[in-house]
Amino acid sequence: MAYRDDDLVCAWPVPSDLDIAQSIAPIPMQELSAKMGLAQEEIHYYGRYKAKVDLCVLDRLKDAPNGKYVVVTGVTPTPLGEGKTTTTVGLSQAFGKHLGCPVFTCVRQPSMGPTFGMKGGAAGGGYSQIIPMEEFNLHLTGDLHAVAIANNLLAAAIDTRMFHESTQKDEALFDRLVPRDSAGGKRRFAPVMKKRLAKLGIDPEIDGDSLTAEQKGAFARLDIDPDTIITRRVVDVNDRALRGITIGKGENEKAPRETGFDIAVASEAMAILALAQDLPDLRDRLGRAVVASSKNGDAITADDLGVGGAMTVLMKDALMPTLLQTLEGTPVFVHAGPFANIAHGNSSIVADKVALKMVGPEGFVITEAGFGADVGFEKFCDIKCRSSGLHPDCAVIVATVRALKLHGGGPPVIAGKPKAPCYTSEEVDLVEKGCCNLQVHVRNCRKYGLPVVVCVNRHPTDTAREIDIVCQKAVEAGANKAVCGEHWSSGGKGAVALAEAVKEACSLPEKAFSFLYPLDISIKEKISAICVNIYGAKDVEYSDVANAKVERFEKQGFSGMPICMAKTQYSLSHDADLKGAPTGFTVLVKDVGAGFIYPLLGPIMTMPGLPTRPAFYDVDIDFSTGKITGLF
Amino acid sequence: MAYRDDDLVCAWPVPSDLDIAQSIAPIPMQELSAKMGLAQEEIHYYGRYKAKVDLCVLDRLKDAPNGKYVVVTGVTPTPLGEGKTTTTVGLSQAFGKHLGCPVFTCVRQPSMGPTFGMKGGAAGGGYSQIIPMEEFNLHLTGDLHAVAIANNLLAAAIDTRMFHESTQKDEALFDRLVPRDSAGGKRRFAPVMKKRLAKLGIDPEIDGDSLTAEQKGAFARLDIDPDTIITRRVVDVNDRALRGITIGKGENEKAPRETGFDIAVASEAMAILALAQDLPDLRDRLGRAVVASSKNGDAITADDLGVGGAMTVLMKDALMPTLLQTLEGTPVFVHAGPFANIAHGNSSIVADKVALKMVGPEGFVITEAGFGADVGFEKFCDIKCRSSGLHPDCAVIVATVRALKLHGGGPPVIAGKPKAPCYTSEEVDLVEKGCCNLQVHVRNCRKYGLPVVVCVNRHPTDTAREIDIVCQKAVEAGANKAVCGEHWSSGGKGAVALAEAVKEACSLPEKAFSFLYPLDISIKEKISAICVNIYGAKDVEYSDVANAKVERFEKQGFSGMPICMAKTQYSLSHDADLKGAPTGFTVLVKDVGAGFIYPLLGPIMTMPGLPTRPAFYDVDIDFSTGKITGLF
Repeated sequence: MAYRDDDLVCAWPVPSDLDIAQSIAPIPMQELSAKMGLAQEEIHYYGRYKAKVDLCVLDRLKDAPNGKYVVVTGVTPTPLGEGKTTTTVGLSQAFGKHLGCPVFTCVRQPSMGPTFGMKGGAAGGGYSQIIPMEEFNLHLTGDLHAVAIANNLLAAAIDTRMFHESTQKDEALFDRLVPRDSAGGKRRFAPVMKKRLAKLGIDPEIDGDSLTAEQKGAFARLDIDPDTIITRRVVDVNDRALRGITIGKGENEKAPRETGFDIAVASEAMAILALAQDLPDLRDRLGRAVVASSKNGDAITADDLGVGGAMTVLMKDALMPTLLQTLEGTPVFVHAGPFANIAHGNSSIVADKVALKMVGPEGFVITEAGFGADVGFEKFCDIKCRSSGLHPDCAVIVATVRALKLHGGGPPVIAGKPKAPCYTSEEVDLVEKGCCNLQVHVRNCRKYGLPVVVCVNRHPTDTAREIDIVCQKAVEAGANKAVCGEHWSSGGKGAVALAEAVKEACSLPEKAFSFLYPLDISIKEKISAICVNIYGAKDVEYSDVANAKVERFEKQGFSGMPICMAKTQYSLSHDADLKGAPTGFTVLVKDVGAGFIYPLLGPIMTMPGLPTRPAFYDVDIDFSTGKITGLF
Repeated sequence: MAYRDDDLVCAWPVPSDLDIAQSIAPIPMQELSAKMGLAQEEIHYYGRYKAKVDLCVLDRLKDAPNGKYVVVTGVTPTPLGEGKTTTTVGLSQAFGKHLGCPVFTCVRQPSMGPTFGMKGGAAGGGYSQIIPMEEFNLHLTGDLHAVAIANNLLAAAIDTRMFHESTQKDEALFDRLVPRDSAGGKRRFAPVMKKRLAKLGIDPEIDGDSLTAEQKGAFARLDIDPDTIITRRVVDVNDRALRGITIGKGENEKAPRETGFDIAVASEAMAILALAQDLPDLRDRLGRAVVASSKNGDAITADDLGVGGAMTVLMKDALMPTLLQTLEGTPVFVHAGPFANIAHGNSSIVADKVALKMVGPEGFVITEAGFGADVGFEKFCDIKCRSSGLHPDCAVIVATVRALKLHGGGPPVIAGKPKAPCYTSEEVDLVEKGCCNLQVHVRNCRKYGLPVVVCVNRHPTDTAREIDIVCQKAVEAGANKAVCGEHWSSGGKGAVALAEAVKEACSLPEKAFSFLYPLDISIKEKISAICVNIYGAKDVEYSDVANAKVERFEKQGFSGMPICMAKTQYSLSHDADLKGAPTGFTVLVKDVGAGFIYPLLGPIMTMPGLPTRPAFYDVDIDFSTGKITGLF
């Protein structure tokens, strides 16, 4: 099945991403969805070229066998990125358009903030892009907005509740929370309140007037310890002035406190969206999200605040994956965009599930994991797959000659600054030396029992000798195959060798996929498993703050959760300056967040800033054509 | 033309708004848009029951004559609202379904914040509602999110620029703002920068290296006076903790400052969306938006910050009105939702323009203005119509017996508290006394040269004698007709008399519509015209702060703008406690904002709070039906 009748005509030198993207008329969504066999009630159009796929499609396909599940990850990246999305898209185009296999691409939705700062787009690049790329990089179908407002409603609920508790006695609080119905009759508990009653050991069906004074107090006074509040507000703008703020300074407020905003994709609501299996599971996870501890040390959840249902309502459409397409007309799900350092950095489980059913047993789902394999891929396996029950059939590790030169000892690569000469001239020794980084990632992926294909994402100045040495070193480390990809300059045609290698790897006999650690060991044992076996650390130490929090989480009953490490993406270690394949280091866990349990191994930036000349200076509309200008 | 084949079956007692709304299956948007004669390229679907209408429809219809233009306003309201939207919808249903006239309803998009606080929905009520009401009250097609993020990008641009200016000398700033292109060649000014060059009297086509050091400094250093910053950040959540905040407290920040968040609909970006004529006009207005003054007293705009184009890109889809429908299948535009006290409180000009063309000369466009006629209607005429060039054919003033009882001296009406007995028993004298308020509004509307129809929006406990006295007093004050409306309990059928009265008023000979004040008088003369002629004030006084700002705005060249009064909606005066028709009072202008020039006549709440038991406790999803529960 060819997804698009016309062939991609690739110019040289490769034009700008926006020029390429705008030069291709997307297939209208009605046509694309019909081609994919989606029924009318299974699709919700959002304009001409975007749609959401209703999860009811899973009911129709519940007995259909899954396709092959391929996860794309990468070496430890430079700040410029090594083209994981470009490779994910190029590989899909190769499968769909050139090998005639059913294929689906699953990627994260990017944050809008960096779009107007300095980063390039996140829709791939060159002739391997997701279109319409303006939609992809801007509002898309509004999921990010929905997540942000659900998170911010939760945050408002926390501070508002503390305010009201500070101005009212138990009886008055209870009276307002559980008022008599309009006829002046019975006190009615909202359904969500019954969860809190049950948690307190009170019969959820009790009459409101039958509670003792003590029970009323326990029910109505959450007694949140402000120092333990985890939930921060979010906004999808790079706004450094909001990193640290004091709130509650209006003239009628009682207790100002220090907090800050994160970028919207760093919210726990986003991480939850990506892990939810269906709407009831989303409701359940949002309600259980821990926002703080009470002064007694009890975990306080969104449902204790009564807001889990409203958050679900705000996010219910966001749970449907958004359908776009590649330049060569293969389908793409863009769904959920959790931050890859503080959260798990993987697109949604529901998108992967729907895609696997839709491509069928002869098809391939190419899903991308954020950052290097030590970060996004580890979380893909140990968090996302553990949650979904799905196991990948193959991992693709994307490497670039540039990144490996950096790991071999090349000078720093800085976004917006000219590159040192070694990055554009042939330096085989430097590349060879840097392959130590690639080799660790290959060995790590093999630890999960997966076949591994390495793809060198070729840049125009890379030489054949440089690429050959990378492929050789990859196979030495245990990769099933290593190939060069030219999908950036040639589209799917440039990734046919990669697709064939992936297809071959997926058809290898039965893989024994295994997690890195079981859930039933202690929090510290799990952290150690990751630090030692994936990062190459010798040892792990904990700050006093981190020790206290680990103890609290174990006491609150969260020791059975998977671990979501918050670590720099720029090194296999916790120190961004340690390139290559560092060993023998000791990791210091400075702090530990909850939601997932995420140990912070260093300063993690959750609110990017804008440079002196933000990218927004160039962004405008050409009114004669109606097209956006200057976006990337 | 009947918009819906089936007739509304009205139950008694009237069920909840959500129950009624969910009991009617909306006409699929593809069917509705076809019925309306919209071509495929003129409509963008957003799910099954929402769509955006492309402004290209105005090109096709540019020579078509307009329909009649009816504005719905009201008496000074109680905190419960008097049913303006319900009447706007009921009147439309009467025209479309029962009189067979082409009709279009134009209303504002409500803020989501109050949805989870304590207010009822804003989609009308009873059997006169806009559906799907959940969509209407929640994300709709994302316009509010787009406006909020455009505003917040502007706010981030302000603080980021101040940060960078505080850490860099002129030369370095210039160098970063106008870098050499990658080949190390010419310094390239972004198109938006040419506006600033022109403003500074520098040839916009100048070579970047030819500027003098002084010119480079003037170009690159905006030198914003932090005390003059107008732009606040916004969020669409009732979050009282954000009313007053200190930002810039992160460890690398230089200068913390006091600011706060407003609710998203209070943003200037929203006011601009409602007034824009087309995309180039939106671009122009956003770029010209004044955000602060420099330390020299010059106005600093969004385009000085380079962000006007990016804001336009973020808001370009938001400029297309969103199409929904009433319970009886007549079309509705929901578009823009500027706050009615600090901003102008009217839906968009583009929606009204498209609607007027689409209904044609035999049709009616029913548009709603926020709050009482002293607020939303005055701004409708003097700001919105002045901008659009459209003139209304008739004003409908909505009154309730309840509000008039309050104005006659009844006890306070408080949301969420039981009503005093006088509001549910016959009290003809109280009503009659309160009609003084209605009469002022009737006379005020007549001052613009418009026919006036008064509609008493009947509540179940209102008696015939109470309604009769209201109608009689309305006609005494100059209303062309006064009728009782039963559209809440009966849908369009209950508003047929109202529709006939409006039709008759619209067919009266040529109206001489006139503005209340010309633009070419001083700011203070304009403020005085509104306070004396509309509010009934004797005099206007100014605080020192207000005086200084008026002076600054005149110096900056903004004296020719219309005035957007920021006043309580709960009294004709500046004091919410003065009910009825107060006279002889002196208005104190406490402060003056810019954007529009908005004199603040008292404390205006721009960030609502949440009560102890927010409405979100009841909001959830019934997974067996997929329906939202507990929303209103």
